[in-house]
Amino acid sequence: MEEVNQIILSKAGSNVELIPEIAKHLISSGGKRLRPMLTLACAEMFGYQGTGHVVLAASVEFMHTATLLHDDVVDESDMRRGKLAARKLWGNQASVLVGDYLLGQAFKMMVDVGSLEALRILSEASAIIAEGEVLQLGAAKNILTSEEDYLRVIDAKTAALFASAAEVGPVIADQGAEVKAAARAYGRELGLAFQLVDDALDYGGSSADLGKQIGDDFREGKITLPIVLAVARGSDADRVFWKRCLEEGAIEDGDLDAAIERLRKVDAIADTVQRARDYGANALKALEKLPSGPHNDALAEAVAFCISRVS
Amino acid sequence: MEEVNQIILSKAGSNVELIPEIAKHLISSGGKRLRPMLTLACAEMFGYQGTGHVVLAASVEFMHTATLLHDDVVDESDMRRGKLAARKLWGNQASVLVGDYLLGQAFKMMVDVGSLEALRILSEASAIIAEGEVLQLGAAKNILTSEEDYLRVIDAKTAALFASAAEVGPVIADQGAEVKAAARAYGRELGLAFQLVDDALDYGGSSADLGKQIGDDFREGKITLPIVLAVARGSDADRVFWKRCLEEGAIEDGDLDAAIERLRKVDAIADTVQRARDYGANALKALEKLPSGPHNDALAEAVAFCISRVS
Repeated sequence: MEEVNQIILSKAGSNVELIPEIAKHLISSGGKRLRPMLTLACAEMFGYQGTGHVVLAASVEFMHTATLLHDDVVDESDMRRGKLAARKLWGNQASVLVGDYLLGQAFKMMVDVGSLEALRILSEASAIIAEGEVLQLGAAKNILTSEEDYLRVIDAKTAALFASAAEVGPVIADQGAEVKAAARAYGRELGLAFQLVDDALDYGGSSADLGKQIGDDFREGKITLPIVLAVARGSDADRVFWKRCLEEGAIEDGDLDAAIERLRKVDAIADTVQRARDYGANALKALEKLPSGPHNDALAEAVAFCISRVS
Repeated sequence: MEEVNQIILSKAGSNVELIPEIAKHLISSGGKRLRPMLTLACAEMFGYQGTGHVVLAASVEFMHTATLLHDDVVDESDMRRGKLAARKLWGNQASVLVGDYLLGQAFKMMVDVGSLEALRILSEASAIIAEGEVLQLGAAKNILTSEEDYLRVIDAKTAALFASAAEVGPVIADQGAEVKAAARAYGRELGLAFQLVDDALDYGGSSADLGKQIGDDFREGKITLPIVLAVARGSDADRVFWKRCLEEGAIEDGDLDAAIERLRKVDAIADTVQRARDYGANALKALEKLPSGPHNDALAEAVAFCISRVS
């Protein structure tokens, strides 16, 4: 992982000062590096000895960082990982362009590795992620988004990169179709679990207070699974409330507390967490098809870590 | 070229409605398709018989289209190719994300072609273009930008894609280093000429009126070569004027006419056009190292077409 960080920092460099400045702001602000870890573990578990997996892992993290930069612009977010979002510090313009730069660097790094199959998987993910974000844009401000539509969104915007990050491990280690599919399934299910946990955390999770800033999704009018469930299960009065807050953005003092109360009343947060657990269990099931040993254990721990954030 | 258009339209498709809607708005709004033409001609001039060059050409156009979508957001432009910019019709958010999608599709298409060398060249271009845009962001609102700095900007943001579009032609046709370098040089010089002509046209070019909307760069506070030359050659009063209009954005009625007058007084437009001609001549020189015949003639015509827009 240290090598991944080294590559990330060196490849975020540029003669154009602003680029490393913004990239480092994000990269060193304590992301969990979950995605590159998947690539490393899924290659090393097959005894892969080269350095290609480290470069692929770094390019996965660059793709993710580019997405964060663009997301913050799209969502008009003020904060990211407890710091001011890059767009608040350097502006939307620089965030869009530095995101583009990191994406270009990510592809250059993948090309350096030279695996056309890994390139196919990750470039496919890149298009799918953007597609998921556009889909979410359409779903935003629509409280009648169905659970199925919401799952399509997170499958694309979050799970696709987790799935691809895991799959390129056995790809670069020259493994067969079955383990590649198992690694991909593991990554996908973990990604879905991860996103649902995030959704639940934004309303405080299942415990009282995690010291995490909550209510970002609410203030941005994002329709996430807790909302989808609450709208489906709630009364007409509930729907009037959700419509005013999320579609019309007319949020008043105390509305976040009222929202959490309405979510809890219909078990929307607890059930979101339960679905995350289910996806986590699916991820563990996929792991059974991959070689046992310390890397498999680490991947199982990643699932436990994900879920533990919320319970 | 018809095949390129077919691929462009089919690959701009997506289940997510908004994506083809925006992509087609831009793609069918009468771009010149200059860049993909370079790829086609530079492959076919070597007798290339496959279909890879058509796919590469389409991916080059996608890279370009993605750049336009992001540029309009960054520049806060209202118009593009005589139509309302996508960001005015669908918002900044969709423009950022659909740009990302097209970039992802572009890489997928390149991967389909399977040439790692072409992938290296085009992914490198992708990072360089973004770097050039960030550089321009730094130069924006600074009337003391030097000619050298400005050339660095356009070399990256415009010429790199022209150069790469041309270079991948001989790459996919399996040619040697010398002709690849010649194709690249041709594309780069043409790209520089193209950008300078664009810069001159924004102030009406050398002729009186081309029926083209002028003054966009001026209103956006863009520092282009005509401005760089005018600031260097002008009086203190001129610099006060440029500072007010371009750095402070305090543009009043009649300022665009006054700007054009000040540019003409010091031959800033004519000299910008002259430099474009010089780069055009360099492009023709590079063509001498490439096989003669109808494709070479078409590439020479592209240079003439570029310059003719302004004179």
